[in-house]
Amino acid sequence: MTFEQYTYAQLKAFTQAVFLKIGCSETHADQAAEVLVTADLRGIDSHGVARLSGYVRQWEMGKLNPTPNIRITHQTPSTAVVDGDRGLGLVVAQAAIQIAIEKAENVGTGWVAVKNSGHFGIAGYHAMQALAKDMIGVALTHASALAVPTFSIEKMLGTNPIAVAIPAQKYPPFVADFATTAAAYGKLQILQRKNEPAPMGWAQDAEGNSTTNPHAPKEGGALLPLGSDYDHGSHKGYCLGAIVDIMCGVLSGANFGPWVPPFATAGDTHERQPSVGEGTGHFLGAMRIDGFRPAEEFKQMMDVWIESFQNAEAVSGKKVLIPGQPERENHEYRIIHGIPIIDKVVIDLKNLGYKLGIEL
Amino acid sequence: MTFEQYTYAQLKAFTQAVFLKIGCSETHADQAAEVLVTADLRGIDSHGVARLSGYVRQWEMGKLNPTPNIRITHQTPSTAVVDGDRGLGLVVAQAAIQIAIEKAENVGTGWVAVKNSGHFGIAGYHAMQALAKDMIGVALTHASALAVPTFSIEKMLGTNPIAVAIPAQKYPPFVADFATTAAAYGKLQILQRKNEPAPMGWAQDAEGNSTTNPHAPKEGGALLPLGSDYDHGSHKGYCLGAIVDIMCGVLSGANFGPWVPPFATAGDTHERQPSVGEGTGHFLGAMRIDGFRPAEEFKQMMDVWIESFQNAEAVSGKKVLIPGQPERENHEYRIIHGIPIIDKVVIDLKNLGYKLGIEL
Repeated sequence: MTFEQYTYAQLKAFTQAVFLKIGCSETHADQAAEVLVTADLRGIDSHGVARLSGYVRQWEMGKLNPTPNIRITHQTPSTAVVDGDRGLGLVVAQAAIQIAIEKAENVGTGWVAVKNSGHFGIAGYHAMQALAKDMIGVALTHASALAVPTFSIEKMLGTNPIAVAIPAQKYPPFVADFATTAAAYGKLQILQRKNEPAPMGWAQDAEGNSTTNPHAPKEGGALLPLGSDYDHGSHKGYCLGAIVDIMCGVLSGANFGPWVPPFATAGDTHERQPSVGEGTGHFLGAMRIDGFRPAEEFKQMMDVWIESFQNAEAVSGKKVLIPGQPERENHEYRIIHGIPIIDKVVIDLKNLGYKLGIEL
Repeated sequence: MTFEQYTYAQLKAFTQAVFLKIGCSETHADQAAEVLVTADLRGIDSHGVARLSGYVRQWEMGKLNPTPNIRITHQTPSTAVVDGDRGLGLVVAQAAIQIAIEKAENVGTGWVAVKNSGHFGIAGYHAMQALAKDMIGVALTHASALAVPTFSIEKMLGTNPIAVAIPAQKYPPFVADFATTAAAYGKLQILQRKNEPAPMGWAQDAEGNSTTNPHAPKEGGALLPLGSDYDHGSHKGYCLGAIVDIMCGVLSGANFGPWVPPFATAGDTHERQPSVGEGTGHFLGAMRIDGFRPAEEFKQMMDVWIESFQNAEAVSGKKVLIPGQPERENHEYRIIHGIPIIDKVVIDLKNLGYKLGIEL
C-alpha cells in the first residue's frame, strides 16, 4: 500500500465541489465536506473522503435528495423528531444537533430523533458541536445490519456507534466515539485486503463459530458485538447496539434492525421490503452543564478527572489515554503535515473527479 | 453450597423490618426493601438481600442517614441535581426517578444527577419506574474503583452499570441492565469461593497481565473493562465506564473515579482523602415516548422489533434473547415457587436478625 499526501484545504475544496456538483447548496456542501474531511484529520480514514463516492452513488441511485426540506415533524420543549427528507445524513445530523442545542438553551436539555436520513459520517463530529456552548453532546446512529445479537446467526444490528463529548477547562474535551461491535468493519476490511487473519472474537462464521477469517461477514458470517462471546459479555454489546437501534429507529419512525437500508457500496444495495419506517435514523442530544452545576465548576472538576486518569499508573511501556486523545493528536498533526490518502482511495477520488469535471 | 427457600413476602417483611429498625420511615423501609427483594426475584442475587447487612454496617459506621432530607439543589425545566443527604441509595434513586418523570411530563424529558447518595441496588429497578408512564427510563450509577482503564494497572472505575427500560405493547418491556466491565464482580466472587479459575479476560494481575486467578482483584489486580483487552475493544468498555462516572459524579458534584466511596463490606472501607465531591452519585432519566411519536404507534413497532429479534435464526441449541427476558422469567418463577438463598447469606441474615431482634 502506498499513500499520497493531501492538505486539509485540498480535500475540503474537492469534497465541497463534488457535493455542489450533485446539487447541494453552498452551505450544505460546506457542512458535508467539513464532516468528511474532519474524519480524515482525526485519523478515522474509513469515514472520511474514502466514502465520498458512496454518497455520489446514493445520489445516482435516486436515494439521496440534494436539496432536502429538513423539518421538525413533532416536538415538546425538550424533544423533537426531525424528518431529513432523504438528505445527506452529514447535513441532516448537523441540523438536528442545532435543534437539540436550542432546546437545551431553553429548558436544560434537547433530544432529537431523526428519520429519513442517511450515513452521517463520524458520530463524534456531531456530538462535539455542543462543546462550545458548555454542553454535553450525544450522537447515536444505527446502520445496516452487519452484526449479530448473542447466539444469533442472523445479522440484525449495524455497528451502531455511540459518541459523547464533554468539555473540560484547561484540557481538551473528553470525546468518546466508538462502534458497539468488538471491531469496526473497516478494521476487518484492511485484513481482507491483505488476506491476513483477524483476532478471534471479531467475527463469526455462518454457523456462529468465532473465526479468524476476515472475509466471514461476506460469506454468511457476521461481526460480533463488543464483548465477543457470552462469557466475555457479548450480551452487553448486543444491549448497546439494540439501545442505539431503538433510539434511532423505533423512536424516530425510521427503519430498524435488519430493515435499516445499506449505505451504497458496490454490491450492498439490498433493502428488506416492505420497510418498517422511513429511511435511516439518528439520535442527537445536548445537555446544558449549568442545568446541573455552574459550568466553570464542572469543567474544573473535569480537569481533575482527566489529570487523575492520564496520570494513572500504566502497564510497562504504555500510558492511559483520555477518550478522544488519539484522534485529537492526529488532527493536530495532519492539519499541519497533511493527510495521507491510500492509493486505492486516491484512484477512486480521481475517477470521481474525472466523471464530474473536478480536479483533485 | 446449599440453599434455603424463602417466599417474596418473607424476605420483604424481614428486610423492611431491618430498615425500620435502623430508623427509616415506613415509606422508606418499604421502598428500600422492594428494590432489594426485587433483585432476588429477578435472579440478581448479588444485589438482593445478600447486601442487607452491608447497608446496616454503613449505618453503624455513621455513613448512612436513615432520615434523609432528599432535596433538589438546582434545576431547569428538564434537569435537576438532587442531594441525597447521605440516605439509602435505594430510596434516593426512587425519589430522583420520580422527579425525572415529573419533568418529562412537563417538558418531554427529565434528567436528574444525584450526589450524597449510596449503593442504589439494581439499576434496572429504577429505570423500570418510567415504563408505566409510557416513558423510556435510564439509570446509571458509579461505584468504588475495581476496574482499570485500558493499559492502566491502577483501579480507577467501578463496575458502573447502565440500565435502559423501554416499553412494548403486547410483549414485556425491553430492559437492559449491565455492568460496563467484562464480568460483574459477583461472578468472580463465586469462583473465589470455589477456588476455580476465571476465563481469561475478566481480570488482570498487579502487572496488568490477563489472568485466570479469581482472587487477582484483591491481590493488586483489577477487573477488566467490557472488551477485555485493547484488541477486543476494552477502550470502548473504558469509555462506557468513564461516561457513567462523569454523568454520576462530575455532573452531580459527587465524588468520581478513584474517590467514589466504597460500599461497606468487610475490609473495604478505605476512602481516598481529601474527597473531590459529596458521596456517591447516580444519573436518572425519563423520556416521554409521545415527545417523539404516539406511544401506541411506538409500542407496536417495539413489538415488531422484539418479534424480529426473538425469531432471528440462532446458533444450534440456543435462542436469541430480548434484554430483560431472563430476569423476567426468574421473577415469574420465583414469585410463585420462592427464592433460593445461599446458606452463607441465610446465616448472615439470621445473625443480623438476632442482633436487631427480628425473626427471619
